[in-house]
Amino acid sequence: MSGGPPPCPSTPEVFAGIDIGGTTTQVVLCTADLTVVGGSEVPTPAARGGGAMVGTALDVLRRLLDEAGFRLAGVGVGAAGVVDARAGRVLVASDSFHDWAGFPVTATVEGALGVPAFLDNDVNAFLRGEATKGAVAGVSHVLGMTLGTGVGGALWVDGTLLEGPHGAAGEIGHIPGFGDLPCTCGGRGHLETLASGRSIGARYAERTGRHRTAREVAEAAVRDDADAVAVFEAAGTAVARALLVTAGLMDVTTAVIGGGVSRAWPLLAPLIRAALAAEPPVSGHPIRLVRARLGSRAVAVGAASRARGELGAAVPGRA
Amino acid sequence: MSGGPPPCPSTPEVFAGIDIGGTTTQVVLCTADLTVVGGSEVPTPAARGGGAMVGTALDVLRRLLDEAGFRLAGVGVGAAGVVDARAGRVLVASDSFHDWAGFPVTATVEGALGVPAFLDNDVNAFLRGEATKGAVAGVSHVLGMTLGTGVGGALWVDGTLLEGPHGAAGEIGHIPGFGDLPCTCGGRGHLETLASGRSIGARYAERTGRHRTAREVAEAAVRDDADAVAVFEAAGTAVARALLVTAGLMDVTTAVIGGGVSRAWPLLAPLIRAALAAEPPVSGHPIRLVRARLGSRAVAVGAASRARGELGAAVPGRA
Repeated sequence: MSGGPPPCPSTPEVFAGIDIGGTTTQVVLCTADLTVVGGSEVPTPAARGGGAMVGTALDVLRRLLDEAGFRLAGVGVGAAGVVDARAGRVLVASDSFHDWAGFPVTATVEGALGVPAFLDNDVNAFLRGEATKGAVAGVSHVLGMTLGTGVGGALWVDGTLLEGPHGAAGEIGHIPGFGDLPCTCGGRGHLETLASGRSIGARYAERTGRHRTAREVAEAAVRDDADAVAVFEAAGTAVARALLVTAGLMDVTTAVIGGGVSRAWPLLAPLIRAALAAEPPVSGHPIRLVRARLGSRAVAVGAASRARGELGAAVPGRA
Repeated sequence: MSGGPPPCPSTPEVFAGIDIGGTTTQVVLCTADLTVVGGSEVPTPAARGGGAMVGTALDVLRRLLDEAGFRLAGVGVGAAGVVDARAGRVLVASDSFHDWAGFPVTATVEGALGVPAFLDNDVNAFLRGEATKGAVAGVSHVLGMTLGTGVGGALWVDGTLLEGPHGAAGEIGHIPGFGDLPCTCGGRGHLETLASGRSIGARYAERTGRHRTAREVAEAAVRDDADAVAVFEAAGTAVARALLVTAGLMDVTTAVIGGGVSRAWPLLAPLIRAALAAEPPVSGHPIRLVRARLGSRAVAVGAASRARGELGAAVPGRA
């Protein structure tokens, strides 16, 4: 715990959520009903290794606690990559993180703060946040999708996160059936080749020879640049197909979409909806498409929700 | 109950499973550990309506009980089409069934026999049978697929059947991403357009002008008929892709395949495995492919398993 006398037992109890992203680390404090009562963000020292990354997050968290005088009940951490939630470690991390795979995340947090800590994959935490306090709060069956540099996915089934026997459920970015372009993972024709921010830039460059970010391509599409429109139409059609696959396979008929590309929602959502209207689910149940609401704090709030759920706070909703 | 004095309470207790198919009705009696201790099959009087169909099954069941002297604990029924498991009725049935949608299946069985009855979709019952007493007994996460006239699917997640919020989970035959051929459901590019028995015949006829059953196409493929081989290769590749999609989305890495087309297993399985080897799942966990083992009784055994599970028989395994 931080310096000074311990908080009085009647001090309000909070759950902390930490989102360690490739660029930014978000820290939030949430009450038991997941209202955010404090938060801060700092650059992630990804090149300096796991100790520096977790240490930076802990410094921010301690400062927030000192300022607000809350009593910390538990900590949830969301991290990019494949995580071993039970062991509290990252198993596979991207190249941008130094010395991160294998780092004992939850043990370090627990040792430093003296409260229980829990680790989630960041996309799972994103969906947990949106399904407990965000755009799909109270919905029992949801597909969560993040359209960022890559495409992430997570599944909320009967009010709980579907983990899968290897903790690998929800990898919707890398399912086949979306053409034949090569994917970053080594496969071909995956959703990510059409719908990620990186792919939107790449597809636009292939058509025009001009290198643009996904945001710039979106701006060009809004100005009626035919190539930009075509790239976004392909992305929207691919997302719609992924929703249809999930609806057909799992009977999930609500999808919540976040990530940087979803900032182009007024452009993207009508394209997804048009593709869904042209090809309704065989079940006859239409798919409800919802924009994520928690923004850059969704992962941190979801991580806090995980801690609250694990520690059994007696509040409405399941986590 | 059937005529004569009631069986002595020490008489062994059995669970009945009834599979009302378009052509044949199967009835089995199972002990609490799902060993089949009696069974019979009769033609389904599909043209004579729900009363005749259930009545015929009940006649067979009463005869089996009389012969064996077992005490009936409960009845499970598996039926083709979309079913409302809670209400115990078929919601949508194919044209080959007369007066079947809406027929009160479980109420009729309960009224006639005085024991609880339960209704399942036939593909769900198939997977329940294989997962409790068949080829994948004891496996916690399984995709079940039936390659018959159409393509059916069901999902076993953490040792229970995934129903979905509308009871429509598992419709793998009608997910898109498998080319662009028109499907019987009105959609395009569904798995069923390549991998069902009907489609195998149709695809072969398109290539050759010759009308053959799926079994005849399989026999021709074994004799090295290039068109028949190509049709089965397309079917095997499509099934492999469906397994990859399911593995990516749900982290399910065991698939059990049944149905009439699976009788060509020595031809089909190597084609599926070759396609899987060329395109491994992104999770790195290989997909285990298993042939169904309960044959024509899988649905009836699965239906009995449902009754046993609902009635809480204290035996190993979950249903």
